[in-house]
Amino acid sequence: MSFTIPAVVPVRDDALSARLAARIDGKTKPRGSLGRLESLAHRIGMVRRTLAPRLSPPTVFVFAADHGVADEGVSAYPQDVTWQMVENFLAGGAAINALARQQGVTLRIVDAGVKHDFGLRDGLIDRKIRPGSGNLAVEPAMTAAECARALQAGADLMAGVDSAVIGFGEMGIANTTPAAALMHRLTGIPIADCVGAGTGVDAAGLARKADVIERAARLHAGARAPLDALAAVGGLEIAMMTGAMLGAASRRRILLIDGFIATSALLVAARLSPAILDYCVFCHQSDERGHARMLRSLDAWLLLDLGLRLGEGTGCVLAWPLVQAAAAFLCDMASFEDAGVSGAGGRI
Amino acid sequence: MSFTIPAVVPVRDDALSARLAARIDGKTKPRGSLGRLESLAHRIGMVRRTLAPRLSPPTVFVFAADHGVADEGVSAYPQDVTWQMVENFLAGGAAINALARQQGVTLRIVDAGVKHDFGLRDGLIDRKIRPGSGNLAVEPAMTAAECARALQAGADLMAGVDSAVIGFGEMGIANTTPAAALMHRLTGIPIADCVGAGTGVDAAGLARKADVIERAARLHAGARAPLDALAAVGGLEIAMMTGAMLGAASRRRILLIDGFIATSALLVAARLSPAILDYCVFCHQSDERGHARMLRSLDAWLLLDLGLRLGEGTGCVLAWPLVQAAAAFLCDMASFEDAGVSGAGGRI
Repeated sequence: MSFTIPAVVPVRDDALSARLAARIDGKTKPRGSLGRLESLAHRIGMVRRTLAPRLSPPTVFVFAADHGVADEGVSAYPQDVTWQMVENFLAGGAAINALARQQGVTLRIVDAGVKHDFGLRDGLIDRKIRPGSGNLAVEPAMTAAECARALQAGADLMAGVDSAVIGFGEMGIANTTPAAALMHRLTGIPIADCVGAGTGVDAAGLARKADVIERAARLHAGARAPLDALAAVGGLEIAMMTGAMLGAASRRRILLIDGFIATSALLVAARLSPAILDYCVFCHQSDERGHARMLRSLDAWLLLDLGLRLGEGTGCVLAWPLVQAAAAFLCDMASFEDAGVSGAGGRI
Repeated sequence: MSFTIPAVVPVRDDALSARLAARIDGKTKPRGSLGRLESLAHRIGMVRRTLAPRLSPPTVFVFAADHGVADEGVSAYPQDVTWQMVENFLAGGAAINALARQQGVTLRIVDAGVKHDFGLRDGLIDRKIRPGSGNLAVEPAMTAAECARALQAGADLMAGVDSAVIGFGEMGIANTTPAAALMHRLTGIPIADCVGAGTGVDAAGLARKADVIERAARLHAGARAPLDALAAVGGLEIAMMTGAMLGAASRRRILLIDGFIATSALLVAARLSPAILDYCVFCHQSDERGHARMLRSLDAWLLLDLGLRLGEGTGCVLAWPLVQAAAAFLCDMASFEDAGVSGAGGRI
């Protein structure tokens, strides 16, 4: 099967853009004094095509998969932690569960390729492409057909989502390695600047990661087009996220982008459909070394910088109240005129 | 009358501190991977003396007052905007109203010294010390007795607050000038590094602010002790906030510190009772030039950096969901043991 890239149109409407800017500037506050919330409010209005966006809580998808490259000793944790953490998600005990409950966020847990038989499980969306990817240091992570199936499954999942705001998170032991490999391949940034400590590897682990990515870059030297690179050095949850992000943007949703791995999926999506960036809210800058530079390569502006490095979509849930706040001030604040407040220089 | 400084005890309990650290490290996530939320959770547990802090939404106080120094042309807005914005707060149309409604935060609007007769008004807490401070460039902002009354009124207001978390915001045209003057006086940081654009003055306005503070520093050269400096170059809302912060910390509440002006009030409080810093959450770094350096002088770590420069307590409300998130992960996440998840290196 092949993957049909969902059509993502640029967010352009000069008239609406001007009206939104005037609405934001007319609120009873010094111009620009709400900082990045003002750009965020503008973006929300543009994507949702309204001067008064009312947003209900987002749906956050957590895509889980295993990675053959875990065999290379690139993670501080054993591979079993992937399925154990999926069980933890289903039982409600992980960080993402605690944060999502607290904010009324709906969670959807997707098995994109975990190396474990969960059987039929309530609450787990089974889209397993295969039980774990290949070891990208010695073989392609997946075939082109598997990659296409993962992308399509992700895009199709978005059809059933009501929320105007959709978050993208992940779980997969060793997945900072494919994310760094994709970053290196798609941006040309040196490997040393793409690899980081992940869940907490030591200096030797870091050296192994860099070596693995070096070997992968040589082995898959021909895989330069975005989807070829994704199949060669990506991961099943990364591919499914890429498809889901494209599907969500094609449905004009606001995309909450989490950390290093989610951003690597977006990097692929943006190579396929650059307009997707118009729909994105970059929730935070992760503590993972390569994330800051990956974000810069996307001209991203950020909401949070809290030293997070957990994934699971936690950054999406933490940034959601800021998205709400931006919509709230746009909808609910009085204008200088309405409130009878004098403007700068005494104009009313 | 004189002001009795409320007793603020240092937050010390080695046994609880160790138990909190172990609880945080035992959660199903790589150690430290929730970044600053982990330090925040530790602080909340220590202040509230519990391993499982349940926090209801905060009360945010907005202290309003006028400033004689507005006569020097140090603000982009006319002085009437202070009372007009108080009316806007009471009518529910300001940024702080929109954000507070959205987060279920209780607002309390306090007239500490607005140059306007509001009469008896529902929803306005009348603690007016006098209708506007003196012009600090030519006279003391207030007498020692007025300053003491403002401090005491602030401290007394805290007696009736149930919330475990209390935010401090302000409104007062021209009040970045007294805040910068206090900063210069109490920290010795050069005036040029203390003044900023406030609500948006131009280069000439900025030069006027620096000149005003220079003159004030000469005129009030003898006012070096914290309370002397506060009376000479502070403001009525700043003094009342200082008293309120001390009162809140003496009652073991978590203090949400907003922007430049609120932090200048804390600067005074910390000179009187250094232990108050143990109770503080620094909500954000404002876009106002001096704020970053003022925060550094307090060894503050921050939650948000969104280019805000509005005041009103908006930073407190925007940071509140992060405080909630920290409490939520501490209370509600499973431990490795509970969830049967393997730890780093495969330990379970």
